[in-house]
Amino acid sequence: MAKITIIGSGAMGSACANILVDNRHDVTIYGIDQNELDDLQNGKNSKYFGDIELNKFKTTSNLKEALDKTEFVVLAIPTKFIASVYQDILNNLNSKVVIINVCKGFWPNTTKSLHAMLKIKAKNNEKIVDVVSLIGPSFAIEIVKRAITFVDAVGNNILYIQIVQNLFSNDYFKILVQTDVKGAEIGSIYKNIIAIASGMLVGLGYNINTQAALITMSLREIKKYCNYKKAKISTIYGLCGLGDLILTSTSDKSRNFSYGMNLALNKPYENITVEGVASIKNIYENICKKNILHLPIVTMLYEVIFLHKEPQKSVNELIKFAPERE
Amino acid sequence: MAKITIIGSGAMGSACANILVDNRHDVTIYGIDQNELDDLQNGKNSKYFGDIELNKFKTTSNLKEALDKTEFVVLAIPTKFIASVYQDILNNLNSKVVIINVCKGFWPNTTKSLHAMLKIKAKNNEKIVDVVSLIGPSFAIEIVKRAITFVDAVGNNILYIQIVQNLFSNDYFKILVQTDVKGAEIGSIYKNIIAIASGMLVGLGYNINTQAALITMSLREIKKYCNYKKAKISTIYGLCGLGDLILTSTSDKSRNFSYGMNLALNKPYENITVEGVASIKNIYENICKKNILHLPIVTMLYEVIFLHKEPQKSVNELIKFAPERE
Repeated sequence: MAKITIIGSGAMGSACANILVDNRHDVTIYGIDQNELDDLQNGKNSKYFGDIELNKFKTTSNLKEALDKTEFVVLAIPTKFIASVYQDILNNLNSKVVIINVCKGFWPNTTKSLHAMLKIKAKNNEKIVDVVSLIGPSFAIEIVKRAITFVDAVGNNILYIQIVQNLFSNDYFKILVQTDVKGAEIGSIYKNIIAIASGMLVGLGYNINTQAALITMSLREIKKYCNYKKAKISTIYGLCGLGDLILTSTSDKSRNFSYGMNLALNKPYENITVEGVASIKNIYENICKKNILHLPIVTMLYEVIFLHKEPQKSVNELIKFAPERE
Repeated sequence: MAKITIIGSGAMGSACANILVDNRHDVTIYGIDQNELDDLQNGKNSKYFGDIELNKFKTTSNLKEALDKTEFVVLAIPTKFIASVYQDILNNLNSKVVIINVCKGFWPNTTKSLHAMLKIKAKNNEKIVDVVSLIGPSFAIEIVKRAITFVDAVGNNILYIQIVQNLFSNDYFKILVQTDVKGAEIGSIYKNIIAIASGMLVGLGYNINTQAALITMSLREIKKYCNYKKAKISTIYGLCGLGDLILTSTSDKSRNFSYGMNLALNKPYENITVEGVASIKNIYENICKKNILHLPIVTMLYEVIFLHKEPQKSVNELIKFAPERE
């Protein structure tokens, strides 16, 4: 039985906690929303999961207490808060821990990935043993229903990856070892971008033929980006790339997909976190604008989102970049 | 303007005819159902497309007339009828033609693919210039709505592939050149198999996490099969493999998907063509049963369909074959 602290009482934090309690670990959820914490103590997370019954959790809004003598810290907060929360964690640890990251995207205001930056910030902190990220096609609501789910545990050190694998694995949740951190993170960043494009297509009235064309085309773009970043191409054909792409790009359960759909329908979109939008801006400004690579899908989306170009016109132009040969 | 004969008045035959008339070719549809042909003359195919307006087509139920001085013959009939219909075509041609095949699966009662067998049977027939197959994510109903659709034109001779590419390509229908015939056909056969498995998962109450896990796992199985058949692995990451997999495996518009769903729900399935079932039997009996390769998904489906093994139990066992590492 391991002692595990979950940072974040949202959908993915609760889902991770639920797996780990199923696996009989000693789990505490840290959060800042007392209503959510009360709910979780009673085995619910009504905001995200309605009436679905979860395990009953230990919770606290005191970070020091949450981290006391813990062995693993699961980071499950919106990416935009990661910098300050991570610093608070580093300041409050009183034991050696493995960080398990389930957040996605770029580290705010940098071109660094989350995993890379979590490692850099922990470099001189002897409390952090290693960082392992969980990446893969995993909607939280399906996890709490105990649907069969596969994700990758991503890191540089196979020993700690395997420890995390053992922690989470059970008869419905399976973890595969993935040591190509760069490739895995590119997959997890790009899938949100493609989900926005896919949602936009559906908003424009297109359907599966066109989504399949987009996803196949997007694999070429991701490959190009992987080559530039010196990541392994094969990684994007695994759970972190393709698996995740299928999930977010064909399902309106994805926030990024819904954002893209609303974009096409010219509907105002409520101000919730859409990771893909930040990633599009980041990649466009740091890669495409500087003429380092031509990435047609990122460029098309940047023009629609930030330069208010007409979606249908942009899609018609995108098709011209489709290759003539496989 | 090319003279083109469409063999088959079903969904895909009508959809191909509609593209080709959009592209201002001289198109005749041959069929055996006079009601369907009358419908097509009036710019409809109510059976498959309801009220959607198509072009108005020339039609005939006389094969000799249909083939008279034609340049291209599009084969769009159920695979089980291919042997006799193809022989009739060979006997009735009075001009040199390129065969454009849109049928899928194995040649009935053989382990040969359709494309390969169409070539073999035409070997000593000087009327057949070449065979090109169209393979890729393309639901007929979306094509007739002129949704953006990409497919591969697959063949051994790039000259004739490009001629077919020019024939079909327009602003919504795009054709990519693919010269790996074996890989493309494996993709087109396997996607129906995975669609059955995916439908079965949905019938059992699973959702996208599990479908994504299955599809990622299936790519390994397809790779193994490609290696055995000496096909190119890269082909399965294109439109014929992955693109098609996404389409048939996540959509209940696919007959194979619906078949799998009914299988899980223990519902009798009406007797329509389910290509995937024949392919499962073919691959299991010729490969798995002979211990040439272990293909976990094909084996699982064979056991459920032909040995009436319980679907949930079979899925639980399948997961045990999931790899530990990416």
